[in-house]
Amino acid sequence: MKLALFDNWRVGVVDDDRVFDVTESVPGWKPAWPYAWMLSLIEDIHNRPDRWVAIGQRSPSHPLQEVRLRAPVPMPSKIVAAPVNYRRHQQEMGGKTGVYQGANIKTIQDYGLFIKPSSSIIGPGEAVTLPFSGRRTDHEAEIGVVIGKTVKNVSEEAADDAIFGLTCLLDLTVRGGEDRPFRKGFDGFTPIGPWIATSDTIPDLDDVHFRFTVNGDVRQESSTAHMIYSIRRLVALASYQTTLYPGDIIASGTPEGVGEIRPGDHLQLDVEHVGQLNISVASEWGHADYMGPWFNPFLSSRAIPQ
Amino acid sequence: MKLALFDNWRVGVVDDDRVFDVTESVPGWKPAWPYAWMLSLIEDIHNRPDRWVAIGQRSPSHPLQEVRLRAPVPMPSKIVAAPVNYRRHQQEMGGKTGVYQGANIKTIQDYGLFIKPSSSIIGPGEAVTLPFSGRRTDHEAEIGVVIGKTVKNVSEEAADDAIFGLTCLLDLTVRGGEDRPFRKGFDGFTPIGPWIATSDTIPDLDDVHFRFTVNGDVRQESSTAHMIYSIRRLVALASYQTTLYPGDIIASGTPEGVGEIRPGDHLQLDVEHVGQLNISVASEWGHADYMGPWFNPFLSSRAIPQ
Repeated sequence: MKLALFDNWRVGVVDDDRVFDVTESVPGWKPAWPYAWMLSLIEDIHNRPDRWVAIGQRSPSHPLQEVRLRAPVPMPSKIVAAPVNYRRHQQEMGGKTGVYQGANIKTIQDYGLFIKPSSSIIGPGEAVTLPFSGRRTDHEAEIGVVIGKTVKNVSEEAADDAIFGLTCLLDLTVRGGEDRPFRKGFDGFTPIGPWIATSDTIPDLDDVHFRFTVNGDVRQESSTAHMIYSIRRLVALASYQTTLYPGDIIASGTPEGVGEIRPGDHLQLDVEHVGQLNISVASEWGHADYMGPWFNPFLSSRAIPQ
Repeated sequence: MKLALFDNWRVGVVDDDRVFDVTESVPGWKPAWPYAWMLSLIEDIHNRPDRWVAIGQRSPSHPLQEVRLRAPVPMPSKIVAAPVNYRRHQQEMGGKTGVYQGANIKTIQDYGLFIKPSSSIIGPGEAVTLPFSGRRTDHEAEIGVVIGKTVKNVSEEAADDAIFGLTCLLDLTVRGGEDRPFRKGFDGFTPIGPWIATSDTIPDLDDVHFRFTVNGDVRQESSTAHMIYSIRRLVALASYQTTLYPGDIIASGTPEGVGEIRPGDHLQLDVEHVGQLNISVASEWGHADYMGPWFNPFLSSRAIPQ
């Protein structure tokens, strides 16, 4: 099943080129923040998938191209993210020629996991405004793993039972010295979508290919086969640390090829078996070059600390 | 007004030694995750405080000592936290004699802000289980600033309008080399409560005293007067980065005096004009010493990386 939100936050099941509107069957649905019904809906679909397939089949539908798709989880209870989870990305970030020249970049094994704010989520077709004209902001193409049930301490072997599905995810990142949640937490810095493909439609979680382009040029192309910690291991690690709830998103980490994005760019992420996420970068820089004279001096410099 | 959750997640207004049960007036109330009605309720009280004072006055009440108080915001959309926001805490963490001996510890001006998972929240009277027997876990006594409305880009001068109130908050922390959200994000690592004191009951946000004890011994005692970034500046910085929603919590950062907690300890935080939060540390260590052979080798060692 492909589960989507569309138009005025209506709930849809996508089948081929049509979206079936199942909104009338969603308890508590309301097209406004805090969107908690979406978390309960994911839990219910995870528990009773057949019921929702049946609801989809008897629901009215629209051509997909006539609706506006939305972020499929507008307010997860948390976004857990994997820092440096591909070897070649580790290599490109540090050492003599890396983004952080001279730095000793470690991996998820040393950094653990971090958290992104749910307010950084935007959906397909939306634009992100880059906050700083004076600092490098990069694309990081990833896969978002959506949790389907409340779990704690699941093993890698049992992780499948907790995984609701996958979505395309970009982890946009300002380079610099602040903590990761700050540099990666600006509004719009977690585009997701265009929908969630439930895990029964993914043949092999350990070999999902994806390709990311900027203005049509391929920048990142890899597979979950190259992750240091696999999708199942990420679920295990996150659930050892903290209770995972339905709708929680785990960002997989990004492969090599990260690079700068600029106002006016068009970003496109294709994830095999899932779909295509298109995001634009607004034509203007944001407001955050100025945060008051009390904030960090290198916010307004392109220099990256070593 | 002091706003509390109690017993089976009922909503109460605390007055002196009684709690007035206003649950019947809360739309969408349900004693179960995801508790999003609490976020909408905070927004409504922030917009119409007089209405809720009146509802409280005509509601049935219970003696406070006969109810079980709960975490007053069980699922905020995010917890934004201030790293190293008191000079004397900066001093105790690094340098020749610090917790991270030899390390060059910076402040919020360099680190920015970080995010804690909402799943780390527990309430008054609850127990936290420390995950690692082999690693130092510290108390950090703080103040939680609860946001009352949806805001972006508020200035320090306009921040008061966005602040719903204050609560006691502990930011429990495993020491080590992983990213802050990992070391501070375990279940139970963000105790809050016993209620939210709305900001009209706080005479001066820039001089709120607080005192923290472990088993009756004073460990931390300070005032918001000593924060590097004041409460209003934290709201400004967080809202420059990301949209703040009603119920979001900003953790203020901790003053000097952090130290280890152990199974069986009793933690008590008194915040002036707010109240007293009591938390116990479970008598057993948790499960997380073992996260599989694939995780970080120093998880099971007391050594702190330098």
